[in-house]
Parts: sequence; C-alpha cells; structure tokens
Amino acid sequence: MIAGIDLGGTQVRIAVADPDGTVRGVAKARTPDLGDPAGMVAWCLANARRLAGEHEIESIGIGVPGPCDFRTGVLVNPPNLEGWPPLLPLGPMLSEAFGSPVYLGNDADLAAVGEHRRGAGRGVDDLAYVTWSTGIGSGLILNGHLYSGSHGSAGELGHMVLDPDGPLCFCGMRGCTEAYASGHSIARDAGRPASEVFAAARGGEPAALAIVERAASKVGLALLNLVNLVDPELIVMGGGITESWGLVEARLAAPILESPFVTANRRPRLVRAELGTEVGLVGAVEWARARE
Amino acid sequence: MIAGIDLGGTQVRIAVADPDGTVRGVAKARTPDLGDPAGMVAWCLANARRLAGEHEIESIGIGVPGPCDFRTGVLVNPPNLEGWPPLLPLGPMLSEAFGSPVYLGNDADLAAVGEHRRGAGRGVDDLAYVTWSTGIGSGLILNGHLYSGSHGSAGELGHMVLDPDGPLCFCGMRGCTEAYASGHSIARDAGRPASEVFAAARGGEPAALAIVERAASKVGLALLNLVNLVDPELIVMGGGITESWGLVEARLAAPILESPFVTANRRPRLVRAELGTEVGLVGAVEWARARE
Repeated sequence: MIAGIDLGGTQVRIAVADPDGTVRGVAKARTPDLGDPAGMVAWCLANARRLAGEHEIESIGIGVPGPCDFRTGVLVNPPNLEGWPPLLPLGPMLSEAFGSPVYLGNDADLAAVGEHRRGAGRGVDDLAYVTWSTGIGSGLILNGHLYSGSHGSAGELGHMVLDPDGPLCFCGMRGCTEAYASGHSIARDAGRPASEVFAAARGGEPAALAIVERAASKVGLALLNLVNLVDPELIVMGGGITESWGLVEARLAAPILESPFVTANRRPRLVRAELGTEVGLVGAVEWARARE
Repeated sequence: MIAGIDLGGTQVRIAVADPDGTVRGVAKARTPDLGDPAGMVAWCLANARRLAGEHEIESIGIGVPGPCDFRTGVLVNPPNLEGWPPLLPLGPMLSEAFGSPVYLGNDADLAAVGEHRRGAGRGVDDLAYVTWSTGIGSGLILNGHLYSGSHGSAGELGHMVLDPDGPLCFCGMRGCTEAYASGHSIARDAGRPASEVFAAARGGEPAALAIVERAASKVGLALLNLVNLVDPELIVMGGGITESWGLVEARLAAPILESPFVTANRRPRLVRAELGTEVGLVGAVEWARARE
C-alpha cells in the first residue's frame, strides 16, 4: 500500500491507500502535540502500520509547508513549523523509519499533483494550482508533470511583486501578492480574522466586501502575470477561498479577461479546486504513485 | 542537412547546417523585399538549395516573431510583419515547398534553445533566456526542454504588469515591462532612438544613464518575479542590451540580490548570452535537431 502524509503547521494527517490511489484510512493529530521531527516520524510510522494492517507500506509521499529539495528530501526553513531546524532531512528520516522510499514535496506542488490526477485538472497537460488561504502559493504542472524549479521553489506566486511601492510583506519586500491578499494581511487590514471578513462579505457587509474584492483583484493581477509567463491551459483555485468562490470568481478573472494582450484564443480556464481539504492527502498519495 | 530560418520584421536569414549543427552557409534578405509569405517561402527554398548544393534538406527549423502554435506551425498575429495575415500556416507552407518536416517556434523560444544547446546555458536544465531589444520577451527551458506553454505563448515577460498604474503599453495594459524598458519606450521617453540613448549612457551622459538605469531596474523587477515563479538555475540575457552589459548588469541583478525572500541558496546566476546576433539562426537549426 501507499502512505500519503500532509504536514501542516497546525495539523498532520496520514492516509493509507491502495496501489490505485483509493484511500483506505486516515489518521490525524495536532502537529505541536507530536513534539519534534522524530516524534512526528514515530507517529506517522505507528499510524501507517495500524491503518495498513497486514499490508506492507511500499512507498510514502509527503507534502510539507515551505520550500524543499525534492531530490534530497530536505525541508528548508519551514515557516510554519516553529522550533524545527532550518534544514531538516525529513525524507531520509521517514525512509529509514519505514524502510521504504519517501517522496517529499512542497504542499502547493503536491496539491497541484492531486488536482491534476484526481480533481479539476484531469487530462490537462499545463495547469497552475493556486492556493489562497492564510498564505498564497502555487504549484505548476507543465507538459503533464510537476515542475518544481531548480531549487524546489517554483510557483511562489504569493511573493510576486505587484507594485514595488506597495505595502510591506512579512518577507521583507513591498507589494507582494501576499502583502495585499493573504489571510494574514486581510486580518491585519480588517482588524479581525480573515475567516470572519469573508463570512461578513458573504453576508453582504459593504466594508468586508470591499476588502475581499480588493484582495481578489490583486490575486487576479498575479494570475495575469502568471498567464503571460507560464501560459497554462487551466488555473485551479484552491484553499480557503473556495468557500467564497461566488464572491471572488469575477474579480479573479477580470485582469485576464480585460487584458488586450491575452487574446481569447489563449485564455486559460479558471475553475475551483475539487478536492477540498483532502487535496493535500490525495496529492501526497498521488505524488508517491507518480514517482514509483 | 538541416536548414534554420530566422524570420524577423526587418530581415530574414537562412542557414544550412550539418547534422551535428555546424553551420555551412548563410543567406539573408530584407523581409519587406520578399513581398508576401509565398515570396518569402520561395526565397527560403531557393537559398537553402543553393547553400546545400548536392545535399538534401532533411528538416527545417524556423523562428518567427510573435506567438505561434508549434504543433500546427501556425503563426498568430505577427506584430512585426505588417500586411501579413493574422493566422498564417507558415509551417505547412514551408513543409510543402521543401518536402521535409518543418519545426516552427517563437523567436525568443528558439533563442533559448540555441543558448541552451550551444551557448551560455550548456548543461543547465532550467533556464530563462531573456531578450531585451526593441521588445522584451523570454524563452523557458525547463527540465532540459523548451517549454512554450499550452498556446505557445509562455515567457511573455515584456507584458508582465509591474505596476497597474504605470505608463500605458502599446498592448493596451498599463505598467508592463515593455512600457518602461523596451527600445520603443526608451526612444519615446528620450526623444531619440534607443541605440543612441545606450551609446550616450556608455559615454557617461547623465540623463541617458538615468534612463538606462531606470529601465534596467524595471527589467530586474520582472526578473525577480520570473525567479519566484519559475525558479531557474540560470538567466541568460540576450538582445541588443548585451552591448551595454557593464551598464545594466548590476541593476538587473539588484532586485534578486536584495530580495530577502530569494535566499542565497536559491539565487540563479545571471549571465550575458554568448551567441550574439547568430542566436536566432543557431536556435532554429538546434530546434530542428532537437525535434528530429
């Protein structure tokens, strides 16, 4: 069987799946409760064995937050895993514990793999999966395969500079997509959690609606730049934003639709992700399947 | 033998090369002198045969200005070829005339192929070739292969929006890289040809230097966005700008070097192209060789 792990700053989940990708069981835990990386590895091993029963775990896919080197399985400066070391060989650690090959990838990259193989991107050769939640990132499927870049950090749409004189981003640059539109930035601007702002906007509150629409327009501008550089056939939008799709869809699409340079014959489709909160687990399983 | 054609708005050139890519002869003509596309095809056939002598032309590569569909060989809205039809099946026309397969590609894409296989990008798997001349564009080599996008229009770095309130671009958008830094825009801002502005800047004229430095900073910002999205190992700068490399190199590199988000371990190298004015011809020959 195959194990898929979705490692986040808040939660870690593991799925065990048949060789055809059908998920047979899932376990989850709060990441801080597991302590250090060794504790997390031990939890994964115990739960994978429990879920797999008498079957062997033949390979493991794992999605991690932040940049990583998928060739060496090293996680680099994980921004959401406080107290973890800056260079963590999580792939080798898991591989030694399981005695099986481990395929590590950035979470947005693996979500792209999941939507490509099991979700909204089935049958599409060139797509961008864009996640818009607390952070903003993307994963690129090009020529039918995940493209991670030469250092594993392709698709950093959240740190595209949209205006060099724009608001300061936590990364130190000005005018990044995240500085306008991440959940963090929206909460900062609105003085309440982003989830409340989106809920209020769905309820028709004008101030909240204005904040959401401005953020969607900025993400839409980032999508336009992505389209001109990458020319995907499809853009799949995932993350928390999918719950507010009706509010943001038109604003997200507008910069592409209004660009005279992106003629109708080369306009990508823009759709909502299909796998919801399962995308990370499905992506991890599919990444292991794709790499075997 | 292999024929490579570099079709520009001003000039068309053809090279005939050995199967190993060694160029054996070159011919050129002014594009407007050849009249319509049929006249251009006839000129190519006559000159390829003359240059090849007793040898057969086994395949043809051709680089064209503007977007094209490399699968069908159709040239779409060629911006620099006035009076030519908006959808021109140039690949099929050449293929019928030569009786050989024709591989058509965007000129920046084929220049990327040329630098990758014969120039500054040898041995590199992920690179961006950026041309900065009258216009600004790029070609992407990803995982060792040309990536043209799902509609043949990947790499349109000249129309990345750097500031939605910036100056109007000829494409209809505001704040595109070309609106700040193309040869056309520099000439418009300076009131004299861009080549004169660059020559004056090289000579130390303060006003010209200021224009060139501002343009280089804007192209550098576009490079930073490219790095965050594509994560290349290498950026190869080509086009007219290579003659003023000493003036622009530091400004081009600065946004990448100064970005706290692009950590040193994932910074690409930035180098000048090696093939000079031959890059289009070499790229066309190499594109045919790569596709055979």
